[in-house]
Amino acid sequence: MSELSVNHLLGIKYLKRDDIDLIFKTADHFKEVINRPIKKVPSLRDITIANLFFENSTRTRLSFELAEKRLSADVINFSSSSSSVSKGETLIDTVNNILSMKVDMVVMRHPNPGAGIFLSKHVNASIINAGDGTHEHPTQALLDTYSIREKLGEVKGKKVVIVGDILHSRVALSNIFALKLQGAEVKVCGPKTLIPKHIESLGVKVESNLRKALEWCDVANMLRVQNERMEISYFPNTREYTQQFGVNKALLDSLDKPVVIMHPGPINRGVEITSDVADSKQAIILDQVQNGVAIRMAVIYLLASKIKP
Amino acid sequence: MSELSVNHLLGIKYLKRDDIDLIFKTADHFKEVINRPIKKVPSLRDITIANLFFENSTRTRLSFELAEKRLSADVINFSSSSSSVSKGETLIDTVNNILSMKVDMVVMRHPNPGAGIFLSKHVNASIINAGDGTHEHPTQALLDTYSIREKLGEVKGKKVVIVGDILHSRVALSNIFALKLQGAEVKVCGPKTLIPKHIESLGVKVESNLRKALEWCDVANMLRVQNERMEISYFPNTREYTQQFGVNKALLDSLDKPVVIMHPGPINRGVEITSDVADSKQAIILDQVQNGVAIRMAVIYLLASKIKP
Amino acid sequence: MSELSVNHLLGIKYLKRDDIDLIFKTADHFKEVINRPIKKVPSLRDITIANLFFENSTRTRLSFELAEKRLSADVINFSSSSSSVSKGETLIDTVNNILSMKVDMVVMRHPNPGAGIFLSKHVNASIINAGDGTHEHPTQALLDTYSIREKLGEVKGKKVVIVGDILHSRVALSNIFALKLQGAEVKVCGPKTLIPKHIESLGVKVESNLRKALEWCDVANMLRVQNERMEISYFPNTREYTQQFGVNKALLDSLDKPVVIMHPGPINRGVEITSDVADSKQAIILDQVQNGVAIRMAVIYLLASKIKP
Repeated sequence: MSELSVNHLLGIKYLKRDDIDLIFKTADHFKEVINRPIKKVPSLRDITIANLFFENSTRTRLSFELAEKRLSADVINFSSSSSSVSKGETLIDTVNNILSMKVDMVVMRHPNPGAGIFLSKHVNASIINAGDGTHEHPTQALLDTYSIREKLGEVKGKKVVIVGDILHSRVALSNIFALKLQGAEVKVCGPKTLIPKHIESLGVKVESNLRKALEWCDVANMLRVQNERMEISYFPNTREYTQQFGVNKALLDSLDKPVVIMHPGPINRGVEITSDVADSKQAIILDQVQNGVAIRMAVIYLLASKIKP
Repeated sequence: MSELSVNHLLGIKYLKRDDIDLIFKTADHFKEVINRPIKKVPSLRDITIANLFFENSTRTRLSFELAEKRLSADVINFSSSSSSVSKGETLIDTVNNILSMKVDMVVMRHPNPGAGIFLSKHVNASIINAGDGTHEHPTQALLDTYSIREKLGEVKGKKVVIVGDILHSRVALSNIFALKLQGAEVKVCGPKTLIPKHIESLGVKVESNLRKALEWCDVANMLRVQNERMEISYFPNTREYTQQFGVNKALLDSLDKPVVIMHPGPINRGVEITSDVADSKQAIILDQVQNGVAIRMAVIYLLASKIKP
Repeated sequence: MSELSVNHLLGIKYLKRDDIDLIFKTADHFKEVINRPIKKVPSLRDITIANLFFENSTRTRLSFELAEKRLSADVINFSSSSSSVSKGETLIDTVNNILSMKVDMVVMRHPNPGAGIFLSKHVNASIINAGDGTHEHPTQALLDTYSIREKLGEVKGKKVVIVGDILHSRVALSNIFALKLQGAEVKVCGPKTLIPKHIESLGVKVESNLRKALEWCDVANMLRVQNERMEISYFPNTREYTQQFGVNKALLDSLDKPVVIMHPGPINRGVEITSDVADSKQAIILDQVQNGVAIRMAVIYLLASKIKP
């Protein structure tokens, strides 16, 4: 397989196993590139990419921007605060206008689930979903599973538990799709009110006890607690959450095997994980960030090669 | 004629007919460039351009930024929200500071009419007015008349009606100057309270009936309704406006000839024009956007060639 | 001496005299570069620099960004308003995440004194302090003393008075260190409540009378009045301040020798200095701005050469 089966990256749901293999192989190459003294390649000199962020983001936007610049693409940034979106223009009009300026690719974060899918049906450009509401965040799941493969050799057959607010997490959903597609076993663990009712239909098991989940798994992916949601009634308060679903060093050390700790960031130190866990050798959190640039370079590169000149 | 008669682009009012011809001929070249697989030229590698936006803007700012990058200029962006202007510094001081950093050209949007003209008298750099209050928006008028020329072969002798709030529109004023200079016939159409009293002194006729205006014209340029102004007493409400001055497909189809529909964007779908009009073949709205990049490349390129090294 | 004695620029306090000489010699070269028609050098094509501004800034951010681009570095910008910092992530985590994306150098403005020093102990990148609260602003002091050297031939032996709110000014503190290190004599002048108690321990004298200070000095560096602080009780009001510590042309002309007038900007015209002073030949305010780009290019270039590949 030498090219992706898709023209957009809208969600892991739409990818085939071969697509992921191709993305990972390409990311291997770019990871080597960004660790060289000269971190740039001239591959996409003729491509213009617009980063449209209708929601605040730091790491995802910077990671995409660095990936684009290291591929030598021209980059324009657009965030909702300084945009015409407040003037009431429709999303399709906004994007069609940008595309009329001969932009080849759109990286979009949007608060509405399905915004990228909707857009891909109405505009003529390659779309990368950088997070659409509570739906998917495919590049995050690709970099997460790429980081597991890097740490443990392969994803197939590995046991992964995703801990936290599964119900509202695009990171969780994309990870579940990516892990299952690559043959991992997946459990989710979190407050009952935050586990979707039909989650088991995705081939995922629910484990409400964190210790049992950790005893079972090779990898624990600790989702970020959205403090802004903690005020809502069906959420536990932060203290209760940490007692039941936070990981500290004593807990980790009491297990009879090492568990790889992941976190999509930004970390609430002392909430999802304690500082000694975040900074331990079991944590691969900063590897995830580094791999994010390589994965995004790979996705952009592969989608760009499908654009008809 | 091989160079512009001006050192700044402050308004269409200050241009000669030959200037517009030169800009259009240069834009023809750049339009061909941006439709090539490699959309960049190295022309302005030695030029630094500052985009100073003291008012929000999406499409104009992005269009200028893309034009600058495709000419290989170095670009710095400055918007009022993150600026020292809130610290009470004068406009001249702000700009002189930026120019002291060896910036060659300033693209400025400012809420005050005449801000660009004022600045050009006090600082030593090439100034492009990207919209100054209710005064002028010259690159918009250049791209609008360029789009008419592209669609209809020439501007001379064409009948153009500008519909909407003529009183507060910099787009209308710049278009009137550009159309008259190129030999078009111009009418304006809109609520009486929004037509300037002495508009006929510019060689423009007033037609208060939209159907009559459309029956007369080859091109209708539908100005954006500024919803934020609609609350002011002398404005009609949106519903009344649409009934009297909005264009729908039934109205267009009832005419005995095709009328070219233009809009500077962003569109209020269902207000100035309905969606079926906006998306019809008669509308050249996205051509306007595309031509905007070529026109701005041309203006920047021609002004840059007048900078003394 | 061919390289700096430090791996970061955290404050003038940490520099040796030789470091300043090396920075000035390198800035001489870059000043010549930015006055050439082609203002760029390819020196840092392989370097990525992140500008992290946790406080608003215009001129400092633009000056750094231009310096970086003219060295051909890749640049990413990050300001607190659009950042994850509001999500409660620690500064170290924020910066470590950015560094994991293979960023080589961090230029940081932060409201907390010592933020850069703290960071340099915990992360693995070259840090440039672009202002940390009321502590230091080392590139400002370098460009200020470089501008004195340019105007008067050398800094050694020159008499410099710094006028204004010495207590809260990072510009004042960094200037005092830089001037003393280069052998200048320094006095400070301002409202008694705004002079730090132990300032004389830095080898600085206090002169409460502005006329006497001006009669004594070769150079007066007029600090910006922070209007937002004027409401606090121990501050004089603006009118009183101007009467006692503002410089106007009559005062300057009444001295028996020319005094060089400096200001770090942005100027409150009519408060610290009148317009006729700001725009006079004695003022070197815009030279300071221009030298700022050259100084920052020098600092970035010299620190980059110390990064291990």
